[in-house]
Amino acid sequence: MNLLEHRALADKLFADIRALSFDGVGVTRESYGRGENAACDYLRDFALAQGLAVEADAAANLVIRDPDVDAAAPAVWIGSHIDSVPQGGNFDGLAGIVCGLLCVLARRKAGGGKSPPVRTIAFRGEESAWFGKAYMGSGALLGKLEAADLELRQRSTGQTLGECMAAAGADVERIRRQEVLFDKSKVRAYLELHIEQGPVMVAREWPLAVVSGIRGNVRHNRIECVGDAQHSGVVPRWLRHDAVFAVSDLIMRLDQHWRELLERGTDLVVTAGIMQTDAAEHSISRIPGHVAFSLEARSKSIDSLEGFYQLAQAEMAAVARERGVAFRPDRRLLSAPATMDAHIAGLLDAACAALNVPHDVLPSGAGHDASLFANAGIPSGMLFVRNQNGSHNPNEAMDMGDFMLGVQAMSDAIERLSQEPAAVPAAGRP
Amino acid sequence: MNLLEHRALADKLFADIRALSFDGVGVTRESYGRGENAACDYLRDFALAQGLAVEADAAANLVIRDPDVDAAAPAVWIGSHIDSVPQGGNFDGLAGIVCGLLCVLARRKAGGGKSPPVRTIAFRGEESAWFGKAYMGSGALLGKLEAADLELRQRSTGQTLGECMAAAGADVERIRRQEVLFDKSKVRAYLELHIEQGPVMVAREWPLAVVSGIRGNVRHNRIECVGDAQHSGVVPRWLRHDAVFAVSDLIMRLDQHWRELLERGTDLVVTAGIMQTDAAEHSISRIPGHVAFSLEARSKSIDSLEGFYQLAQAEMAAVARERGVAFRPDRRLLSAPATMDAHIAGLLDAACAALNVPHDVLPSGAGHDASLFANAGIPSGMLFVRNQNGSHNPNEAMDMGDFMLGVQAMSDAIERLSQEPAAVPAAGRP
Repeated sequence: MNLLEHRALADKLFADIRALSFDGVGVTRESYGRGENAACDYLRDFALAQGLAVEADAAANLVIRDPDVDAAAPAVWIGSHIDSVPQGGNFDGLAGIVCGLLCVLARRKAGGGKSPPVRTIAFRGEESAWFGKAYMGSGALLGKLEAADLELRQRSTGQTLGECMAAAGADVERIRRQEVLFDKSKVRAYLELHIEQGPVMVAREWPLAVVSGIRGNVRHNRIECVGDAQHSGVVPRWLRHDAVFAVSDLIMRLDQHWRELLERGTDLVVTAGIMQTDAAEHSISRIPGHVAFSLEARSKSIDSLEGFYQLAQAEMAAVARERGVAFRPDRRLLSAPATMDAHIAGLLDAACAALNVPHDVLPSGAGHDASLFANAGIPSGMLFVRNQNGSHNPNEAMDMGDFMLGVQAMSDAIERLSQEPAAVPAAGRP
Repeated sequence: MNLLEHRALADKLFADIRALSFDGVGVTRESYGRGENAACDYLRDFALAQGLAVEADAAANLVIRDPDVDAAAPAVWIGSHIDSVPQGGNFDGLAGIVCGLLCVLARRKAGGGKSPPVRTIAFRGEESAWFGKAYMGSGALLGKLEAADLELRQRSTGQTLGECMAAAGADVERIRRQEVLFDKSKVRAYLELHIEQGPVMVAREWPLAVVSGIRGNVRHNRIECVGDAQHSGVVPRWLRHDAVFAVSDLIMRLDQHWRELLERGTDLVVTAGIMQTDAAEHSISRIPGHVAFSLEARSKSIDSLEGFYQLAQAEMAAVARERGVAFRPDRRLLSAPATMDAHIAGLLDAACAALNVPHDVLPSGAGHDASLFANAGIPSGMLFVRNQNGSHNPNEAMDMGDFMLGVQAMSDAIERLSQEPAAVPAAGRP
């Protein structure tokens, strides 16, 4: 099946959805908010116009399939997420959805209802930027969203995640009860195409790469450091409880641990993406009494995550003692690392090789919805497409030629998978 | 002259002005803004009702005097500032104005137009919290406000200082030309009563203290650290340009220098009162590409200020090189340290001693309008009143008994000064 001939359609989908969510700098598709809704509506209308069936699942994710293919038969799912970070890029997430849509559409055109079942799932709410929690749409579907998560508030509007999911049409009560909202035995595999968000593939000139596993992360969305706000001119160093100096001290201690762990070969990245003194009380001439910051560590190894987390807690206690401040972390959030299915990785690798595309196997530093499917026991695979300038910024740049090669390889791998005998039910897998 | 009998009037003035500027947490009297205007209007109405003369000078500061005393004769000025930091305390600034008002009022009641000339000046715009610049009202009067200062913008409204001063009635053109807006030879001395903003007097049980000198400061209101915003999961440590780690590194380097300078006996405090990642682009899962922060050093010694400033510049260059970021400081602001007049300090000391109040001599860590008068060659003196919980916060707590002792001591010192032969004109002083 030749997917390359659908290039013009792919161009149009990316351009139209970018225009719907352009914010003047990049694209902004808020999880369960304006930009995501606009993209959802566009995708629904587009799919219906192409004669496809469109449904929302009980978590308000969009499911697109060929209406003439048996909806009850186990299917290969191919998906990614609709939302973006604020001022983000157009391809992060959307590329996987366009890939899935092209795969379903090409099969409908070619097969006339006789092609193997493939469906596209467009997840809402993957980015943690909006509610401080990632994988909300896929997590809800898999019964992994906790009641406390539903109380998280949107960074701008202050609405809770539960309210926003309900407004999007999700069945919040079932989600709160952590029900699995679909029949796992009806999923042969979960596949995801995504842009690479790091610099490796550009440097090594690989248009495509097969993902071996996905880094997990441990996070606090908000840690408050509370000191004592005083006039900056009159309190000597040893009587200060300066929240900015305390947080800076903590970060430099963690930086030192990070360096030492890297020297021992540990896979680890550490980020404090948000740091804010309190605008209602801060001033140039006031010792800052309050800093709120986020803290995140990512690793392929759950042991490394837990080890670093323990170090961070110990250093917070030490800084609190030495500088007379208090650290008040919010709820700890853990996303476990995941391993991709070796057999599916082999199929993706073979598909790339058959297309003569330079490629290799790469771990994913960023998290993806695929990690939840893999950790739920569903065979999962990911294909990365080369992309310049990283992601989570407006400058991400995927070459459309690379993208179409990725779509072709994904389609070919699905073809190989569909020709295999049906797998044992997901529940029985290790 | 007994000032202690005016205690009820002082209570009323503090209570009324607090009520006018209460913000739910502390008091907020924005420089050239709502709270300051409300306090100004109240003071004007109160003084007129008491039969005093009220004028605004060309910098929109409020001048209150006895209309029956020769307005052209050299006078002792007693003053302080009307404005406060956001969510500040009621006594910082206002105490000195109430003191001055009581001194003028008591003389009018006692003297019937024959008392030595004393006037109260209530300065606008002393706090740097609003425009990032201190001593705006006294600076304008002394021709020390620069044209660039008039372009500074209010932290909330974005209006320029020039616009706000003009709206308050100041002659912005004369200020821009840096004219001295009063006749220095008509000022015998500048006196200021102020709460102590540090912890010393409470600890040592001194209700009053005579100020020996005032710390100066060197500041950048806003330094931008620019790195590279990227997805937090995919960029390894050595390829990151993390603005939060860079600023934390800078602050810890400065903290180390500060410690070493203190060990060598240097007078120094260092503060970064404001620190903010960019709310439009920051997220938990994004390497922060932008941090804006303030930096301030204060010292009694201009050499220590300059020395520390050079260290800060060198460390910024080193961090920029090592972490691949850029530091972009705004205009450097310098307020020179000041020495109080020894003769006036002696008069204040004698007045405290005559009242049998435990007192001593203290340097001021915070800056005051008095430093500008001292550095302009006008003999200046300050009296501190004991105060709990520091200042620039809503918990400052001055005992009214202590305050009235301070008012009495100030009045007695003015009495002694007035009985001396008129000083040589200010212009001729060293």
